[in-house]
Amino acid sequence: MKNLLEDIEEVLLMGPGPNCVPPEVYTALSRKTLGYLDAHLMRILEDLQGMLRKIMNTKNELTITLSGTGSAGMEAAFVNLVEPGGRVLILVNGFFGQRMQEVAARLGAAVDVLEFPWGTPVDTKAVEKKVRQESYKIVGVIHAETSTGVQNPVQEIGALLKGSNTLYVVDAVTSLGGIEMRMDEWNIDVLYSCSQKCLGCPPGLSPLSFSERAMAAAAGRKNKVPNWYLDLTLIGNYWGKNHVYHHTTPSNMVYGLYQALLLLLDEGMEHVFSRYKENHLALVAGLEELNMKLLVEKPYRLPMLNAVLVPEGIDELSVRRRLRNEFKIEIGGGLGLLAGKVWRIGLMGYTSRKENVDRLLGALRQVLR
Amino acid sequence: MKNLLEDIEEVLLMGPGPNCVPPEVYTALSRKTLGYLDAHLMRILEDLQGMLRKIMNTKNELTITLSGTGSAGMEAAFVNLVEPGGRVLILVNGFFGQRMQEVAARLGAAVDVLEFPWGTPVDTKAVEKKVRQESYKIVGVIHAETSTGVQNPVQEIGALLKGSNTLYVVDAVTSLGGIEMRMDEWNIDVLYSCSQKCLGCPPGLSPLSFSERAMAAAAGRKNKVPNWYLDLTLIGNYWGKNHVYHHTTPSNMVYGLYQALLLLLDEGMEHVFSRYKENHLALVAGLEELNMKLLVEKPYRLPMLNAVLVPEGIDELSVRRRLRNEFKIEIGGGLGLLAGKVWRIGLMGYTSRKENVDRLLGALRQVLR
Repeated sequence: MKNLLEDIEEVLLMGPGPNCVPPEVYTALSRKTLGYLDAHLMRILEDLQGMLRKIMNTKNELTITLSGTGSAGMEAAFVNLVEPGGRVLILVNGFFGQRMQEVAARLGAAVDVLEFPWGTPVDTKAVEKKVRQESYKIVGVIHAETSTGVQNPVQEIGALLKGSNTLYVVDAVTSLGGIEMRMDEWNIDVLYSCSQKCLGCPPGLSPLSFSERAMAAAAGRKNKVPNWYLDLTLIGNYWGKNHVYHHTTPSNMVYGLYQALLLLLDEGMEHVFSRYKENHLALVAGLEELNMKLLVEKPYRLPMLNAVLVPEGIDELSVRRRLRNEFKIEIGGGLGLLAGKVWRIGLMGYTSRKENVDRLLGALRQVLR
Repeated sequence: MKNLLEDIEEVLLMGPGPNCVPPEVYTALSRKTLGYLDAHLMRILEDLQGMLRKIMNTKNELTITLSGTGSAGMEAAFVNLVEPGGRVLILVNGFFGQRMQEVAARLGAAVDVLEFPWGTPVDTKAVEKKVRQESYKIVGVIHAETSTGVQNPVQEIGALLKGSNTLYVVDAVTSLGGIEMRMDEWNIDVLYSCSQKCLGCPPGLSPLSFSERAMAAAAGRKNKVPNWYLDLTLIGNYWGKNHVYHHTTPSNMVYGLYQALLLLLDEGMEHVFSRYKENHLALVAGLEELNMKLLVEKPYRLPMLNAVLVPEGIDELSVRRRLRNEFKIEIGGGLGLLAGKVWRIGLMGYTSRKENVDRLLGALRQVLR
């Protein structure tokens, strides 16, 4: 049988993720596997937790990686907190907000939804009105809506909820490591992300943090978490001082993420955020020169995920195919309501470099000519 | 901050998993990441499915890898099939049978348990009696009980259930790739495993297969699967012809498993099974020379997982520490009822080689002197 791995090309990954990975991270992935209770692996996990806390700006003890992708993070957030009939408010302005609604509903929550047009941010005033009228156990929102490129006002919503009994769940799958995140200051109880976007590692892990308040809610449930694999009390006992076996840690993925976070912190998060901003502005300027428009108004744009309107008369799929086949560049198509209407250009991880912006703009110039 | 990855030693992993990994698999892990819809990745996934079907001896279309460890496989098996109050029989003769009971119970199943002493196999006659008395939607068993080193009579139980409406779930976490598995012939409806044991890849993926009958049961549920992340209908739509986005495939782990399976099939499964058997027999002979005894009677012993009774007067933990620190060899301790009473010596994946058996026996000779 032909070994297809030998034909893997190096693609410039400018879609919604996974994105490009620094060479040091690839090297880290192939370090020798260690046992799930090995003392050296325990030290690596401990330092990994410390780095995650720095990037999230939290002191939460339960700050770990789940052995699954960012979607497992969403599942874990809700399955540990939702009890049947519990009241949940999800703020929806895109595909991933809809997914959050679906995840919570499947777990038996009584889900209310506040919807906002795709491409616009969640309106804090509407949220304020809703949470003053009704009492919710959980409010959930997507920080960076990957389907539209909108940044939601996570800090402002957190300020609204301060002092209430509501647990505040924030999806940072696309935002963490690319824009500021101050979990504790912003009153966030639950945060989860993924390895393959702004953190600069391949997919497979989900960094996650639960506040003490959120952990107390999980521990105080009437019934056990109906998901043994993602039960955070059990998982916390493994990551904690006693290292009680739960499931086998995916050591090599952990090595990759450890290396990726080390590189980010060495660069300095402020520098990383500036780099993201600059490359985003360079991309937007170049796209405008090509007469292309972004879906989102300027104040609400994410630097790492740019939804670009497909110009009239252009077959969007054939553009993506030509970019991939002739130029070895991947960009993303639209999801849900926006399928066929936008391209999604990601500038995340090792992808967010000026030379990559120039390479894409050069390729687009030829393909759209 | 010190980069702890630079101090990772090459440990001879002779515990219950993870086990050693061939050099080609480490190389595969660090191939360039591809997008989750990339046409070349789709070809890799398709060939991976074909290789999994060969190793499982199944024609099931839904034969995939889950983005989680073997424990996610157990969770997926039950969460897709269990409906509240549904009757489930779990055959328990060790720690992982108990885990299966716990997973099913958390999902709201009405769980019956048939228990057998740890270190002995499930008694098919007792199962026969039980399933003639009662009607179950699901019967679940562990093929290779990793806590004791016992092989359960999976084929015989499958024959018992043939013609009934009961779905037969088999945990092949420790068995797959090390002893024969004939999923379709043995009437198995659901099979799951892990990447890091006999398949010879680091941890992080769970190969899984559902029969048509099991998929029909999942599709015919009254309520949606209360776990969006592990919903096999959705996951199947991604692995199927239409490649509908569900979550981001952990591409680099997939490369590792692809390479590992390629090596196994190149060697030939019959040859692999003989190699396991030979190395097991060499280990047992060497242990007996050292006056050590196995927990399990000869006819029920697994070749890949050997539970060895800790000799009286020996501090089992200090032996394991010396093996790890002085000889760079990891063996496992006991779990549950057997904590402190046995060592678990794994001969799986790249670990199952004669030179490794000799190295361990030499080290034990020195440590136990």
